[in-house]
Amino acid sequence: MQHQVRAFASDNYAGVHPEVMAAIAEANGGHVTSYGDDPYTERLGEVMRSHFGEQAQTFPVFNGSGANVVSLMAMTDRWDAVICTETSHINVDECGAPEKLGAIKLLPVEAPDGKLTPELIDRKAWGFGDAHHAQPAVVSLTQGTELGTVYTPDEIAAVTEHADSKGMVVHVDGARIANAAAGLGLPLRAFTTDVGVDVLSVGGTKNGAMGAEAVVVLNPGTVRGVDYVRKLSAQLASKMRFISAQLIALYDGDLWQRSAEHANAMAARLAVAVQGLDGVRITQQTQANAVFAVLSRPVAERLRERFRFYDWNAATGEVRWMCAFDTTENDVDAFVAALREELAR
Amino acid sequence: MQHQVRAFASDNYAGVHPEVMAAIAEANGGHVTSYGDDPYTERLGEVMRSHFGEQAQTFPVFNGSGANVVSLMAMTDRWDAVICTETSHINVDECGAPEKLGAIKLLPVEAPDGKLTPELIDRKAWGFGDAHHAQPAVVSLTQGTELGTVYTPDEIAAVTEHADSKGMVVHVDGARIANAAAGLGLPLRAFTTDVGVDVLSVGGTKNGAMGAEAVVVLNPGTVRGVDYVRKLSAQLASKMRFISAQLIALYDGDLWQRSAEHANAMAARLAVAVQGLDGVRITQQTQANAVFAVLSRPVAERLRERFRFYDWNAATGEVRWMCAFDTTENDVDAFVAALREELAR
Amino acid sequence: MQHQVRAFASDNYAGVHPEVMAAIAEANGGHVTSYGDDPYTERLGEVMRSHFGEQAQTFPVFNGSGANVVSLMAMTDRWDAVICTETSHINVDECGAPEKLGAIKLLPVEAPDGKLTPELIDRKAWGFGDAHHAQPAVVSLTQGTELGTVYTPDEIAAVTEHADSKGMVVHVDGARIANAAAGLGLPLRAFTTDVGVDVLSVGGTKNGAMGAEAVVVLNPGTVRGVDYVRKLSAQLASKMRFISAQLIALYDGDLWQRSAEHANAMAARLAVAVQGLDGVRITQQTQANAVFAVLSRPVAERLRERFRFYDWNAATGEVRWMCAFDTTENDVDAFVAALREELAR
Amino acid sequence: MQHQVRAFASDNYAGVHPEVMAAIAEANGGHVTSYGDDPYTERLGEVMRSHFGEQAQTFPVFNGSGANVVSLMAMTDRWDAVICTETSHINVDECGAPEKLGAIKLLPVEAPDGKLTPELIDRKAWGFGDAHHAQPAVVSLTQGTELGTVYTPDEIAAVTEHADSKGMVVHVDGARIANAAAGLGLPLRAFTTDVGVDVLSVGGTKNGAMGAEAVVVLNPGTVRGVDYVRKLSAQLASKMRFISAQLIALYDGDLWQRSAEHANAMAARLAVAVQGLDGVRITQQTQANAVFAVLSRPVAERLRERFRFYDWNAATGEVRWMCAFDTTENDVDAFVAALREELAR
Repeated sequence: MQHQVRAFASDNYAGVHPEVMAAIAEANGGHVTSYGDDPYTERLGEVMRSHFGEQAQTFPVFNGSGANVVSLMAMTDRWDAVICTETSHINVDECGAPEKLGAIKLLPVEAPDGKLTPELIDRKAWGFGDAHHAQPAVVSLTQGTELGTVYTPDEIAAVTEHADSKGMVVHVDGARIANAAAGLGLPLRAFTTDVGVDVLSVGGTKNGAMGAEAVVVLNPGTVRGVDYVRKLSAQLASKMRFISAQLIALYDGDLWQRSAEHANAMAARLAVAVQGLDGVRITQQTQANAVFAVLSRPVAERLRERFRFYDWNAATGEVRWMCAFDTTENDVDAFVAALREELAR
Repeated sequence: MQHQVRAFASDNYAGVHPEVMAAIAEANGGHVTSYGDDPYTERLGEVMRSHFGEQAQTFPVFNGSGANVVSLMAMTDRWDAVICTETSHINVDECGAPEKLGAIKLLPVEAPDGKLTPELIDRKAWGFGDAHHAQPAVVSLTQGTELGTVYTPDEIAAVTEHADSKGMVVHVDGARIANAAAGLGLPLRAFTTDVGVDVLSVGGTKNGAMGAEAVVVLNPGTVRGVDYVRKLSAQLASKMRFISAQLIALYDGDLWQRSAEHANAMAARLAVAVQGLDGVRITQQTQANAVFAVLSRPVAERLRERFRFYDWNAATGEVRWMCAFDTTENDVDAFVAALREELAR
Repeated sequence: MQHQVRAFASDNYAGVHPEVMAAIAEANGGHVTSYGDDPYTERLGEVMRSHFGEQAQTFPVFNGSGANVVSLMAMTDRWDAVICTETSHINVDECGAPEKLGAIKLLPVEAPDGKLTPELIDRKAWGFGDAHHAQPAVVSLTQGTELGTVYTPDEIAAVTEHADSKGMVVHVDGARIANAAAGLGLPLRAFTTDVGVDVLSVGGTKNGAMGAEAVVVLNPGTVRGVDYVRKLSAQLASKMRFISAQLIALYDGDLWQRSAEHANAMAARLAVAVQGLDGVRITQQTQANAVFAVLSRPVAERLRERFRFYDWNAATGEVRWMCAFDTTENDVDAFVAALREELAR
Repeated sequence: MQHQVRAFASDNYAGVHPEVMAAIAEANGGHVTSYGDDPYTERLGEVMRSHFGEQAQTFPVFNGSGANVVSLMAMTDRWDAVICTETSHINVDECGAPEKLGAIKLLPVEAPDGKLTPELIDRKAWGFGDAHHAQPAVVSLTQGTELGTVYTPDEIAAVTEHADSKGMVVHVDGARIANAAAGLGLPLRAFTTDVGVDVLSVGGTKNGAMGAEAVVVLNPGTVRGVDYVRKLSAQLASKMRFISAQLIALYDGDLWQRSAEHANAMAARLAVAVQGLDGVRITQQTQANAVFAVLSRPVAERLRERFRFYDWNAATGEVRWMCAFDTTENDVDAFVAALREELAR
């Protein structure tokens, strides 16, 4: 079935990359042990160790919310809290899963560009040892951020060093980690393992997988009970081989990189094309695969009749345009042309 | 990649049925809206209504634990409890997910054949209106049961009538609902909608899907907030079309039935072949796709070196042999031959 | 045993008012039914109805955290969120009890004077009907606030009207509700029942009780299962009569008012005395029984050796001085004299 | 106020022992630091160490449910389960608090006399290391049991040794620990510290306190974060001195013992008097302060019009008669006389 024109609403409107689809079909060869004791999941562990170092432990899960919640539950005690940005996915887009599944208190901080800094962290990193106060135990970053920006390795190092100095550990929500790596032009470990990140949610779905993410523990001393937590969170796939095969398809080789570089390039093409248009103001740096812009409501509404995309902030008129692994130059050009037409009306 | 000989350990050792795999590939045609607002999920709703009636509401999820937890959370208030059997999947095989994600108290009852009855329910259905006591609000059955048995429609009707008389509602864990239907030779609704079941976890994964289950609400007045509960439980798939497509492949047509009938037939073939063998005692009626038997530990250990299967009760020497959609007559015959050899040693 | 000089650290450093102590002793006459089915608790219900109207339902609990958590759990569904201020007790002083006991997501807003307004509420009151977003369902105010300020009836009415217009309900944390009433010179219902508050945590402990608070439901349609929630939260006292007797001693008559007026007057005396002192800057209006001031760290440290009090914001040098029902003019004057001495060194 | 004749319904129908009341009044001398940093709570620690050994750590809480939930939360990880009896207070009388506050799975076992044994524990102590199974981590006993029986030190030692051999730790719900000690004629540590119990809920309320219990950690290596858990469970009293003073009044000296011995003696008097009466069958050994008996429903109903008591098992006609510290010989004799009259009608 062929569907509507490509949207700019979310990278998860896209389907599955053909190489991922082929890997799924290839994995369908007879019986293997369920729940992860299979050769695909074993191989995925090797692949992730090749990216993140020999100490890395990999736990495939169904989706990004699952990866985040399992990570945070395994990193925290009953009395702990997690510092994050106001705009973080865990804070605004998971219907309270951290609080409601994990009984974790979030401590959100406003961060205009979606990035935490030691100074912002310190607004919430207090009350250590005080029983009246949920204990700040984890800092959770998103890389690339929900605002289309990307932390540099130095920026992450500053966070991990600061967290460590306060006895906290660092989680990275990497639903778009491939886009971040592509944006930085760096290997995955350069801004994770090498700069002190402890636990990573590795994304696949937004970058061409069907539904495949993983908790990758970079510093095993910072988690407890991941196996149990994944199971009790209903995130343990019985036919796990098919999740592992997707992630192998992406990360064993350069598909993750090719796809992310393409999506980022399409966002850059879009940003360049609309920058300077009268009636459009780009609000964030375009460092990954999203463009954020403010435009007037009537223009946005008319444009949306032709291409799907989301309001980011209805109050300010800010919208988000996402590009995916399969967005084409033609898609972008058609979108820009449509935008120009609507601006001219 | 071709893998080990077919096992008798679990129906989730099997791979994906070719018709399901084709449906997944077919669904990969361009962009569709994420999170369930897509034509596949809409079609799945129609398919389920054709089975369960016009009032049925369908919520695809990732796995059986997810379907059960979402169902039970949507059926209960903070102070409620759920009556189930001691051997139920929700009680022993989900690492406490109902308690740990949903803060639900389970009230397990011993049921030698895996089936609840009004009498067994009454052992836990008390304390209504007493604030000291978690309120029995839901009865959760498994159909087919974890012990390979199948409730008749009358048996389920007895439970639903009894539950209703006490103000309780009824959930069915239908991870193997297709095997139950095949065992009974009845349409799905004959032992669900038609006999008063309120909410159903419909299984796909154990019957040839890659990973696809659904909460199907048969009686909408008995749930609240399913949409929210699914999301906060991290069970809302972003690329949901690929889950829906699997369930369509199974349930829009007779694949669900053909596959389940085949798996059941293989279990029956196995049961017939081993019945009466010296040193083997079948412990449960073989009404679906599992055979339960007691055999001596040395025989079990030697047999297990040749074919994977699970101990069910290490204390009594009871083992479980499961057949899947892809188990062949040759697999069964080879297994029986191996068993005979080991018994003879 | 006679203890240290009166502190300005917290109103819960004080002991029990003699009239409350007498009421406790008086209640100790033989056997009564436990868990609240006793004549004292019945009488307390009448007393609260005389304050808050005939529809008011009263549920005594042990402490303020308990009252808040029971209230919020009874007002919310599993998927709901509660809007509050950043500085609210539920957000910073209960070790995450709402999230950790009740799986409730808090949506904290910065409010410089500790008071929510429709505008501040709107920063968090969005995403209604979106399953990705925990649903804003309750606005929780503190009256008097944690910053020593007091909402006027009009200010509360603006909040309740706004909340109602968005389908939300309103909880008031009234740990210091007596101080608020005294500060306003108004009866309790003037800024609760009469302006649309739905559920109220009524405080006793900070105003001369030994340990006695109550959930008072002003709008019974906005809660479900309070009896169960209180029990499952371990807040149901077996010998409840002794809690009820304390609250009767305070609220059946004017002890609540006399004590609060006195504590407020002592705070006002303190504020007047220190205002204009070189090296002291009062940061909040003194509308109840607390004075907030900024002074230099060395002065604060030396003063603290003589009188206990808390830092409110270590970064800015802001401290909090609380007065209690038993703070005397001499206590205040001695404290002011000590402060003058330390400022002069 | 003088109330109804003494009941046989529960030991918490009684009021407060005069010596406890005097201690409360005595503690009301001026300001002390709140939340447990006070001389009474410090003294209570010494008192408990004198009973339970130098390693004992004491955390006062409001009530027995609180003591149990705080204990179990501090003893468990997110994935753990607690083995207890079907009739245990934590399983049937706390509205699911362990599951609902602590996300703890309970594994209840039927125990006809209310006592766990290694054999009964083994019915639930399995699945160690299996991620699909909530991990049995704690065995929770009740001493004296909910059925009026008392474990001998040897019986507890058998449990703790067995638990230890499986890597589990042992909690004792000691809401009636004084009655158990009195029944055994042994010091408190003889059946706790000395036989390997790890954490103890020490009761006061049922033995003449107003409302005072404590978590006493006997083996500090078996808990984590008790301070935080107590606070987040809303069990941290602000004016804690008044709870500590009650427990000092009971346990610093022999009030706990005198009161419990008296209550036990009254139950023994009652048991002896009714034993052998036609139409009454005593069902449990009377080893503490409760008598369990079966009698016909009409007799029970008529008797209940004269003296309050509870049905224990409505199906079998079993009732429970509890004696308290203030039950008199006259009360017992009057009750027996009434029973005789009703039996004779």
